[in-house]
Amino acid sequence: MLRTLGARGFAAPTASIEWHADVVPADRAAAAAARERIDNLTKPVRSLGRIEDLAVQLCSITGGIPAHAFERRAILIGAGDHGVADERVSAYPAEVTGQMVGGFLAESAAINAFARAVRSDVFVVDFGMRARPAAHKRLLEAHCGDGTANLAHGPAIPRERVDIVVGVGAEIFDAVSQYDIVALGEMGIGNTTSAAAIVAAFTGRNASEVVGRGTGIDDARLARKTTVVERALRRVVPHDWRSIASEVGGYEIIGLAGVILGSAHRRIPIVLDGYIVAAAALIARAIAPASIEYCIAAHRSREPGHRIALEALGLQPLLELDLALGEASGAALALPLVEAAARMVREMKTFAEAGVATGAATS
Amino acid sequence: MLRTLGARGFAAPTASIEWHADVVPADRAAAAAARERIDNLTKPVRSLGRIEDLAVQLCSITGGIPAHAFERRAILIGAGDHGVADERVSAYPAEVTGQMVGGFLAESAAINAFARAVRSDVFVVDFGMRARPAAHKRLLEAHCGDGTANLAHGPAIPRERVDIVVGVGAEIFDAVSQYDIVALGEMGIGNTTSAAAIVAAFTGRNASEVVGRGTGIDDARLARKTTVVERALRRVVPHDWRSIASEVGGYEIIGLAGVILGSAHRRIPIVLDGYIVAAAALIARAIAPASIEYCIAAHRSREPGHRIALEALGLQPLLELDLALGEASGAALALPLVEAAARMVREMKTFAEAGVATGAATS
Repeated sequence: MLRTLGARGFAAPTASIEWHADVVPADRAAAAAARERIDNLTKPVRSLGRIEDLAVQLCSITGGIPAHAFERRAILIGAGDHGVADERVSAYPAEVTGQMVGGFLAESAAINAFARAVRSDVFVVDFGMRARPAAHKRLLEAHCGDGTANLAHGPAIPRERVDIVVGVGAEIFDAVSQYDIVALGEMGIGNTTSAAAIVAAFTGRNASEVVGRGTGIDDARLARKTTVVERALRRVVPHDWRSIASEVGGYEIIGLAGVILGSAHRRIPIVLDGYIVAAAALIARAIAPASIEYCIAAHRSREPGHRIALEALGLQPLLELDLALGEASGAALALPLVEAAARMVREMKTFAEAGVATGAATS
Repeated sequence: MLRTLGARGFAAPTASIEWHADVVPADRAAAAAARERIDNLTKPVRSLGRIEDLAVQLCSITGGIPAHAFERRAILIGAGDHGVADERVSAYPAEVTGQMVGGFLAESAAINAFARAVRSDVFVVDFGMRARPAAHKRLLEAHCGDGTANLAHGPAIPRERVDIVVGVGAEIFDAVSQYDIVALGEMGIGNTTSAAAIVAAFTGRNASEVVGRGTGIDDARLARKTTVVERALRRVVPHDWRSIASEVGGYEIIGLAGVILGSAHRRIPIVLDGYIVAAAALIARAIAPASIEYCIAAHRSREPGHRIALEALGLQPLLELDLALGEASGAALALPLVEAAARMVREMKTFAEAGVATGAATS
């Protein structure tokens, strides 16, 4: 069981320096070898499109043909509360964070139904909830604060704490490191406001381009949310991840950035869910650029800033299903595609092996 | 074991009249009840986008909340040869149809890898192969002809045989009727030429709009293929499914239309793979319009005419993964989405059941 922030002393904040070295680039030679093998399997060249690209990425992550088909799957939902919820930027009251986490642990929420469909375990990580949930076998305690301060009025998280949250996230990954693949999601009323500010700060976009309707807010809330993000951005040093994380971050977002670093360090693929997780990936990339090579973008959501974030990350989403839920719901749905890609490159025969005629080269 | 055409006498061709009555529309009251339930589950309204629409469709198909999560899955690959392969419209020689079917039965092809990933059984149906495969527990014999005649020069299939092929397809469905869901794919060198002509005949599009590169042909083959389709279409009575099926059809395409009718009759959902299966669905719709209400479009492929065919069918694809393989590969990948949709509507709790605060109605 992982200890919580209150119960232990964390090392000095040197995350940035450490992680640059700890995450190595994915294996380009393995990627090239995978592409050559895939081009010789019994199918027209490139006829499996995005699934082939995914298989190549998986081989680059594991450093060769994967030894398994990524069947041991963990879904990890980072949870945290947001002081900015006081600005009425969400359609739901702040206490819904804890209620939904209760639902995840009771296995009655959307992500639980999806996890059963894709044969995955589900874990919740309390990175910074106001109301700490009771102990549960599927709850990982990584509590770094009782929710953020209201980013509309000042730093969301004390500056000296952001490196610690990253480190806690990387350490939490150990709890699921026996899995072949980790899908990341989040829960936190108000966290699309934080994500929008993070994406704006990393991409230079205006608040109006990155702020969306989140859980389904009306025009009045949308206008308030945009104004809140605009004002908060004035305090942020652009592209400075510590400034961004401290001023407009969220515990679960920064913690998930740490999980990405921990997973990339172990060369285990990470499936990113929606907008908030993309914001976490932007932080992870700022800390260790190579970490993004281990990330798979599951889907593009309805949230307009998600497209901007994915483009900034250089990631092309696998699915586009008009989702706007979070909870790792989209990431869960991409897991069978990962298994299909892995099985394709592992299990299919080449034309030579199968004794099938190859395509005619000329007309 | 199903008997082959040669071994039995089929009834007189009255498919059209029978099937109009035998396929009833999907249950609109069940769809409305499902939508109401989904809107009250513990998530923002409509936040699961296309998965919600899919769940509503599943409820309309089964006439209520499904009694299962569509875990018993059959992939059915219709196979047939095409005389038009003699026109060198494919990148592969005609014998590849039989070789690939051998691969499906040996479980070494792409569809077998994908089927293992999505926990589905795979069946091959010989609707009209030139070289009949040896008996195999996963081979269903529905042999209606030794490949089509060359549609470049005359009718592909004798007029009096098309109703029989539809009937054989509907009957073949009985072999997999113990499954909860059926995913349809195909194998037949030359069959994108046939599919293009079928789609053009049903939609009034020009050959150049519906002809694509299939298995990856070069410009010279593409030009030849377009000319072949253009000329063949002159013999076709537009919108007359028997004329279309006879002049430019394929045994596996017409047979799959029959499978769709049989599945819709039993109110079992059908997951459509790519372009060729969409052509089969156009034939099924011409015979019994309500049959399309039981169809789920798995994906949109790289083949340009597929978009035209899906729009004509009124179906929105779930996936867009730049696939161009066939074999039911895209249909297989959609099966976990169906399970996720079914589990969502079956297993999630409502706000009231879970004791979670609902969204604030006002700002």
